[in-house]
Amino acid sequence: MALLGAAAPAAFGQVDELLPRPAEVESLDGELVIDGAFRVEVEACGDARVGRAAERFVGRLARQTGLVFFTSAGEHPAPPALRVRCGAGAPHAPTWRTDESYRLEIGRDGAILSAPAADGVLRGLETFLQLVAPGPKGFRAPGVRIADRPRFPWRGLLLDCARHFMPQEIIERNLDGMAAAKLNVLHWHLTDDQGFRVESRTFPRLHQMGSDGLFYTQEQVRQVIAYARDRGIRVVPEFDMPGHTTAWLAGHPELAALPGPYSIERKWGIFDPTLDPTRDDVYHFLDRFLGEMARLFPDEYIHIGGDEVNGKAWNASPRVAAFKQEHGFSTNEQVQAYFNGQVARILTRHGKKMVGWDEILHADLPKDIVIQSWRGQAPLAKGAREGRMGLLSFGYYLDHVSPAAAHYAVDPLAKEAAALTPEEAARVLGGEACMWSEYVSPETVDSRLWPRLLAVAERLWSPADVTDVDDYYRRAESFSARLDFLGLQHRSGLSPMLERLAGTSPPPPALRELAAVVEPVKQYVRGKTSPHTSRTPLNRLVDAARPESLEARDFRKAVDAFLADPSRAARREEVRRRLDRWRRLDAELQPWTARSFLLAEIAPLSRALADLATAGLEALEIVASRGKADPAWWEFRRGVLDAPKRPAHALEIAALPAVRRLMEAARDGS
Amino acid sequence: MALLGAAAPAAFGQVDELLPRPAEVESLDGELVIDGAFRVEVEACGDARVGRAAERFVGRLARQTGLVFFTSAGEHPAPPALRVRCGAGAPHAPTWRTDESYRLEIGRDGAILSAPAADGVLRGLETFLQLVAPGPKGFRAPGVRIADRPRFPWRGLLLDCARHFMPQEIIERNLDGMAAAKLNVLHWHLTDDQGFRVESRTFPRLHQMGSDGLFYTQEQVRQVIAYARDRGIRVVPEFDMPGHTTAWLAGHPELAALPGPYSIERKWGIFDPTLDPTRDDVYHFLDRFLGEMARLFPDEYIHIGGDEVNGKAWNASPRVAAFKQEHGFSTNEQVQAYFNGQVARILTRHGKKMVGWDEILHADLPKDIVIQSWRGQAPLAKGAREGRMGLLSFGYYLDHVSPAAAHYAVDPLAKEAAALTPEEAARVLGGEACMWSEYVSPETVDSRLWPRLLAVAERLWSPADVTDVDDYYRRAESFSARLDFLGLQHRSGLSPMLERLAGTSPPPPALRELAAVVEPVKQYVRGKTSPHTSRTPLNRLVDAARPESLEARDFRKAVDAFLADPSRAARREEVRRRLDRWRRLDAELQPWTARSFLLAEIAPLSRALADLATAGLEALEIVASRGKADPAWWEFRRGVLDAPKRPAHALEIAALPAVRRLMEAARDGS
Repeated sequence: MALLGAAAPAAFGQVDELLPRPAEVESLDGELVIDGAFRVEVEACGDARVGRAAERFVGRLARQTGLVFFTSAGEHPAPPALRVRCGAGAPHAPTWRTDESYRLEIGRDGAILSAPAADGVLRGLETFLQLVAPGPKGFRAPGVRIADRPRFPWRGLLLDCARHFMPQEIIERNLDGMAAAKLNVLHWHLTDDQGFRVESRTFPRLHQMGSDGLFYTQEQVRQVIAYARDRGIRVVPEFDMPGHTTAWLAGHPELAALPGPYSIERKWGIFDPTLDPTRDDVYHFLDRFLGEMARLFPDEYIHIGGDEVNGKAWNASPRVAAFKQEHGFSTNEQVQAYFNGQVARILTRHGKKMVGWDEILHADLPKDIVIQSWRGQAPLAKGAREGRMGLLSFGYYLDHVSPAAAHYAVDPLAKEAAALTPEEAARVLGGEACMWSEYVSPETVDSRLWPRLLAVAERLWSPADVTDVDDYYRRAESFSARLDFLGLQHRSGLSPMLERLAGTSPPPPALRELAAVVEPVKQYVRGKTSPHTSRTPLNRLVDAARPESLEARDFRKAVDAFLADPSRAARREEVRRRLDRWRRLDAELQPWTARSFLLAEIAPLSRALADLATAGLEALEIVASRGKADPAWWEFRRGVLDAPKRPAHALEIAALPAVRRLMEAARDGS
Repeated sequence: MALLGAAAPAAFGQVDELLPRPAEVESLDGELVIDGAFRVEVEACGDARVGRAAERFVGRLARQTGLVFFTSAGEHPAPPALRVRCGAGAPHAPTWRTDESYRLEIGRDGAILSAPAADGVLRGLETFLQLVAPGPKGFRAPGVRIADRPRFPWRGLLLDCARHFMPQEIIERNLDGMAAAKLNVLHWHLTDDQGFRVESRTFPRLHQMGSDGLFYTQEQVRQVIAYARDRGIRVVPEFDMPGHTTAWLAGHPELAALPGPYSIERKWGIFDPTLDPTRDDVYHFLDRFLGEMARLFPDEYIHIGGDEVNGKAWNASPRVAAFKQEHGFSTNEQVQAYFNGQVARILTRHGKKMVGWDEILHADLPKDIVIQSWRGQAPLAKGAREGRMGLLSFGYYLDHVSPAAAHYAVDPLAKEAAALTPEEAARVLGGEACMWSEYVSPETVDSRLWPRLLAVAERLWSPADVTDVDDYYRRAESFSARLDFLGLQHRSGLSPMLERLAGTSPPPPALRELAAVVEPVKQYVRGKTSPHTSRTPLNRLVDAARPESLEARDFRKAVDAFLADPSRAARREEVRRRLDRWRRLDAELQPWTARSFLLAEIAPLSRALADLATAGLEALEIVASRGKADPAWWEFRRGVLDAPKRPAHALEIAALPAVRRLMEAARDGS
């Protein structure tokens, strides 16, 4: 937050700000002036998406700059400032084999964007937009020569629209954000225990009984797919089976391994209901259903889930027991492998290839399936060695509420995969960030995705040696701000949520400052802090707070700098100023916490922050004076570092680790 | 801005916060708890709009609170918390004679909203939404009994979509805002010299040649009308004639009084092109065109403009000269009266009544026309005495960039109208705020409309004795914040615009603080500060700054309080703190103004603010010490009060008048 000072902001429109960083960049002299006479000319591109992309590009440039372009009136016939050239290949839907490379050269007299395929043009237009900013004399783009291409061909986002339904407009604005970040796959998690979100005309009871009325019509699905395709993004639907199927069974209990009735699951977790793997009519049903979906979704892949089959339903079913005996199966894994084999044959019959979570990895499956590793990086390397293609999601779970730095450090070709031969390594197609939606609603999804998703986007696009995480953060904030022009609400949504919490406008400044230094609890701890179901409102401070506190990040750096040289008064002052402010927030919030039940729960949090800041200030003085704390001080104060394991407010103080270091330095002396 | 402190914020959901204030309110004991089990039941309403309104209401309540309502799943069959009852009258399109009254009673056990007509239900649902806020134990609405009805039946907003085209989504979200403010007429200014914005199938050259491709299709028009009708808002289209018609003539030069060719006007002002009032084929054209529009727009009124005919084209036309002679006309006013008479007959033939600007007021016109007074309040009273209905817009021009207080003080029944008999006064139907769009773009329109439009909305709805302007401001800020939930961008649009100016995110804090204490120049001075056309980008600080600085308003109050008793240290400190901050902004902005051409122009502004603040601080000390300034001080400093008449940045320092008072107090001694 600007209030408390922060690192120098990144400037828009500099070559050094590009995100993801291009493969090859060379700065050139001069710059291209961009004014109302700017126009784009598309030279013979075979794919109609390019013309539409050029139109969107001009609209976005107008929004981003506020310029009014004259060209619509057919006046000012200046030469085009940007010429777009691409291969004359026929229009096509993108696949992971699509060439996304492009070359962009910007000079004083104009810019040329060329690419073998339409998808490369789409990527290059995004790069161009990032380069436009106000200069001393007007809007301009810097002289540059870029040759760019992705490191991995499959760069995805899983969006869970089953646990919390996400309306079409939210998907579409996030597709715009994905395209800006050069991501190219929307993994659309459409079915789960808590909801069946796609209209089936073959089996309408699926969405009618399984969605509370919250589903995508087939017309909407087609619109989303077209919207994505225009932006060079594939849509891979997931129909999770044989577990995670409670919502299917609400309308079709006859598919289950155990008798029903079933109703939509409202809780979060792993549940027992499972499809019956023994019956032909189940496979017949899946054949007809997947056939319908294969026609609806044009991508060559369909994701069949396959995760978290707990086996309880199968263990309790006499039919499954008999089936195991008959087939000589001793484990449920073998049963699931059989099930997957049947589904794979169904998909093949409908012209599709299979993607599944790493549980499905089994020797009998066809070689062209894609394994998505979520439980570790090992299955990716193992699969690659066995000739299987894979995707990494382990380490990319955005719903774990980890800092961007954690995702940024995860490379699909590091760890076990580092030892792969080039041929094997090429089977690692890329990865997908995952946004599971237990604790994410339409109102909060943008701020849970952005800007952290950019860490995964850059990791999957940019060369392997682009690893400077501080530099990443600098650029990500700048990118994040520009997403406002695409309608994303990760920034604008904060004020209304704080106002709702406080019941006033403006909300108390102390609330905004508190929100800036806390973070939601990590992993799935939130579910242990209080009961959560699909009906639990996500309207608390934990939902308003950013997943990652940049304020705490800045503070940590200030503490590091101070501890490196406690004699520097400016560094001490930087730390002191923040601690002093945090110490006083609690008193300012007191009058508010009694008024609103939504704020009542954070009273212990702001008290804990005050106590922590008080101890931090004491430690600061001790360290600054080159002293050493009385052991009694440590004993008296150390309790402030004990954060509750399951706090009711589901938040943690992100500045705590840095205060701990300060206190330990005081305890240990210099 | 919260940074510099402000008046105590208004709390949501209190009876005292309602805006517009209802006619009769009585607080009751107890409150209604609102949780996930909340549901609405509509009892036999003849108008299907009520059912749709109830659905929208639940959706808005969910957004506003973040609650998840269970009712969609058919569970929790609790008794309805809100029962809606209305007269069983047939569905109808609203007119100004529609009964909009309603009664709302909220108690511990539930709420009842009843109204004679659907439109009253719509108004009452908005009232209910304003009453919901978090309390100590959960969301709740206070016990209350309200009997409410509008003071005036015609409460409109003119939106000029000709000078700057406003996309459909912008119109629709502002219709939502209007409905929240209980406004009931969208006056859709669709044609002007700079654009012809509606599809004509009869004469397609009108929109094809007159709009640069920026027009509403008839399908879009129907959607906007349906959207408005669902919210109890009439849509009255304006086709301005015989002047303001350059864009018509681009495609149909044969309609003009002088030979063409004509092309779309790009400048702002009053222009010569005028329809030929002498020819039957012109009236035949208008008959066919207005016939088509009469079928497209269901409202009983069509606005024919009639303003600002400068007469130059008519004076230069031999045909018109001959026509005058033939008819014995000596003035162009007589010619226009003839023209209006012809148009009135055309409208009557198509079942419509006429609205026009006060220039059209003429004895020969039918009695059922409505006169819209924009040049003063006098024509309203004059018309009413002569038996004509009228609307007030004089004093309600939002594009004059006046403070809300100025609009709030204008009462359609004050001044000349105060002497009317009750029967005459009833002919004053209400008024319309006007948002002419020379200096308003799709990006900025929300912030130019909101929250100031609320001042007109309350004036036209609430009883005449609701005039406490400080109380109005308090409530307006609260209302304004809630508009975020309707998608309005008057607040969220600020940060992206400041970031664009600076070319960084976050923008320098000093820029935000400068923006908070300046205002765009008033009236139409902006056009004199630099050349403006329809192609001029509206992306400057003058476009980002709020039309009214609440910071300056707070400062003025602080100065008043200080001058009333200069011995009070706290009051002095309040003034000093702000002045001291403003004094320092310039130095902080210096490094930025060289980098961005958009900031370069504000360098003189921030310098002027620094000088003004310096002089203000000196004056403060003199007054606080009960001294009197040396006359040389006044001579040395008085220049800071001379704001430039036509500043290039088109901004003024809103705090200047208060500093002037401080300096004068120092000069004059206490």
